[in-house]
Amino acid sequence: MSLALERQTDDVAAVMADVGRRARRAARALALAPREAKIVALTAAGRRLREAEAAVMAANEADVAAAKASGVAGSFIDRLTLTHSRLAGVAEGLEIVAGLPDPVGETIASWTRPNGLRIDRVRTPLGVVGVIYESRPNVTADAGALCLKAGNAAILRGGADSFRSSVAIHEALAFGLDEAGLPVDAIQLVPTRDRAAVGAMLSGLDGNIDVIVPRGGKGLVARVQEEARVPVFAHLEGNCHVYVAAGAQLGMATDIILNAKLRRTGVCGAAETLLVDRAVAATHLAPLVKALLDAGCAVRGDAETRAVDSRVTPATEEDWRTEYLDAVIAVKVVDGIEAAIDHVETYGSHHTDAIVTDDERLAARFLAEVDSAIVVHNASTQFADGGEFGFGAEIGIATGRMHARGPVGVEQLTSFNYRVHGAGQTRP
Amino acid sequence: MSLALERQTDDVAAVMADVGRRARRAARALALAPREAKIVALTAAGRRLREAEAAVMAANEADVAAAKASGVAGSFIDRLTLTHSRLAGVAEGLEIVAGLPDPVGETIASWTRPNGLRIDRVRTPLGVVGVIYESRPNVTADAGALCLKAGNAAILRGGADSFRSSVAIHEALAFGLDEAGLPVDAIQLVPTRDRAAVGAMLSGLDGNIDVIVPRGGKGLVARVQEEARVPVFAHLEGNCHVYVAAGAQLGMATDIILNAKLRRTGVCGAAETLLVDRAVAATHLAPLVKALLDAGCAVRGDAETRAVDSRVTPATEEDWRTEYLDAVIAVKVVDGIEAAIDHVETYGSHHTDAIVTDDERLAARFLAEVDSAIVVHNASTQFADGGEFGFGAEIGIATGRMHARGPVGVEQLTSFNYRVHGAGQTRP
Repeated sequence: MSLALERQTDDVAAVMADVGRRARRAARALALAPREAKIVALTAAGRRLREAEAAVMAANEADVAAAKASGVAGSFIDRLTLTHSRLAGVAEGLEIVAGLPDPVGETIASWTRPNGLRIDRVRTPLGVVGVIYESRPNVTADAGALCLKAGNAAILRGGADSFRSSVAIHEALAFGLDEAGLPVDAIQLVPTRDRAAVGAMLSGLDGNIDVIVPRGGKGLVARVQEEARVPVFAHLEGNCHVYVAAGAQLGMATDIILNAKLRRTGVCGAAETLLVDRAVAATHLAPLVKALLDAGCAVRGDAETRAVDSRVTPATEEDWRTEYLDAVIAVKVVDGIEAAIDHVETYGSHHTDAIVTDDERLAARFLAEVDSAIVVHNASTQFADGGEFGFGAEIGIATGRMHARGPVGVEQLTSFNYRVHGAGQTRP
Repeated sequence: MSLALERQTDDVAAVMADVGRRARRAARALALAPREAKIVALTAAGRRLREAEAAVMAANEADVAAAKASGVAGSFIDRLTLTHSRLAGVAEGLEIVAGLPDPVGETIASWTRPNGLRIDRVRTPLGVVGVIYESRPNVTADAGALCLKAGNAAILRGGADSFRSSVAIHEALAFGLDEAGLPVDAIQLVPTRDRAAVGAMLSGLDGNIDVIVPRGGKGLVARVQEEARVPVFAHLEGNCHVYVAAGAQLGMATDIILNAKLRRTGVCGAAETLLVDRAVAATHLAPLVKALLDAGCAVRGDAETRAVDSRVTPATEEDWRTEYLDAVIAVKVVDGIEAAIDHVETYGSHHTDAIVTDDERLAARFLAEVDSAIVVHNASTQFADGGEFGFGAEIGIATGRMHARGPVGVEQLTSFNYRVHGAGQTRP
């Protein structure tokens, strides 16, 4: 497949300004779209994607071939590559989002004032969501679908290396929108691979982008957070902690740390540091460290941790700050819950942090005082995920405190307004 | 009173960076403060303000004298001037905020997953709120109190002409914080009148300001919205509409438009345009226009409106966009609800818009389709106010769709996090 669908232009600014205007127009129509139309659009898009498998695969093969020729890393190729089952998963994802509860129009709160005015607080779409991602073709479908379900127009800008694949997947989304009688501009793929398009999106397209969601590595997220002139839903890092406190059962602590660290090491909810309270260090530290080492995890520890197993290498100050995203963990003995919370607040990234203990008072304190998007008692940090939270799907996890925090699902992609019902009241 | 309390410095950037760091430190302590401590702080501050009346008045008189000498407008002097009753109102405001429900720690939602994990969504403070306002000394107390109640540290930057008054009022707030054992840095007044301090705040003080709230005229709000590198809760304009639709009772419509336009003309919820549906124009237009004119309101109208009363002057395109904030109104006849909604969406400012009708279907459509922070059926637009909404107090009204929208009260100054309660669950 050629790159014929890429818009040839010298003037990226003009192209992007047009994309922004069309998105805003589509958002206004979409905000009023019946629930059923969004379901039809997403279901039809899923069907179309299955039907168009050959074309999507051909596009993806062209992307993969070009990427290989340019000599990128194997992990990059893996993320870029679609298989039959991956594509089936993408189509199924569209159908799952179609079936989620529609948040738009939901009355979140309702109360009546002494003067008889009834005030309803009702969910509304946010407007236009810009999504900037790397060369993972599935994000085109996932992000587009979530934005649509929440009544938002989406402007999608994927990695240049996945352009052909994204165009092919986007065609299915456009087909679905058209089937449902919704504006096809409701989900736009940026029609140029020119990197200047990213800068244009970060500027907000003259007020036509309301929020930007970056999906990808730290470099991408850091650039977006630094340069965006509009709000961003994101997390830069997931430097997550498991704190094994006084009153922790060793068996539970072992299960949790092995899962939190090793179930998948590359996810943002993976644990990166284990804190063991001195109160249980004599009994728990050695077996916890042994379990990690035996499972193939490298352990970097403070002096006390190194003393329990010769395989432990020294941890430096830098280790406490590091998100390894690998089978490596930093381990430290701490003096009580205050020191543990201090450590988490000093070195953590406010993503997801867990305490293991049977002491409810300690757990309550940790959950109240650790200022992270997700705080966990007696469970793995790897539950940090919109699906696991019951949100059905997520567009990412946010660590900011504005608007969205934690897993960003359909509901977090909405705003609200107030609808006041009177009987002729005037204000005295 | 001299300006001795102003920090003398050549290096505003360094002073402001220090203010930011202290605010962040105070915010962390404040987030964990017991509810009772905040109540004690605000109550003690109110008491102190009453006790210190002589000193506050002297400071205010010095401000007023200096402002008069510089030849500013009378309305400016009026806003700057404290009287015995105004100061009593400020003190009472502190006590009212003390008595509001404390939002921090409230569980907003709670659900249990099939694997037994219980997930609580709990309100937390936002962090550090920057407030930039003009020379209205009362805002120092009002804004500081609301931020404190929501567990946030506040950085207050009032107009240079009210510096002495703000320092005197701030002294009472600091006294209250100290009484309650809370960090006095929880409410900081920017210690310099240098305008560069505003620029520093707009830059976000190295990530130490989470949100900025501007309080003041359009010039101030526009500058903040344009230059701020952090989220802003604000509205630039309140170009509010009353749409008298088919099925409107003339008596109710008259009461509502007179109140919406004339109760107070200078507030952001005041109506600026009256739209009369052609379906009721023959019966309602002339008496509505007459009522406005007879009440001393200038009317600028389209051709049909001019035809009903010779006192009506022509409305130009510019009038539909104008927030008069005065006893002036623009009046237009529209063809049906679609034209009315179109007009509101084209010329409005997404603040507060009302429909008057006994036709529930028309009302439902207007409330669903007008994309404003507040939409009203059969009541005055002047109810656009946190107090009238039952929020107890407000720091302003926001027309953005991110995080806060409509009146910004204590609850809108909070964030949330997720607290996950397990029994040893690991993720498969």
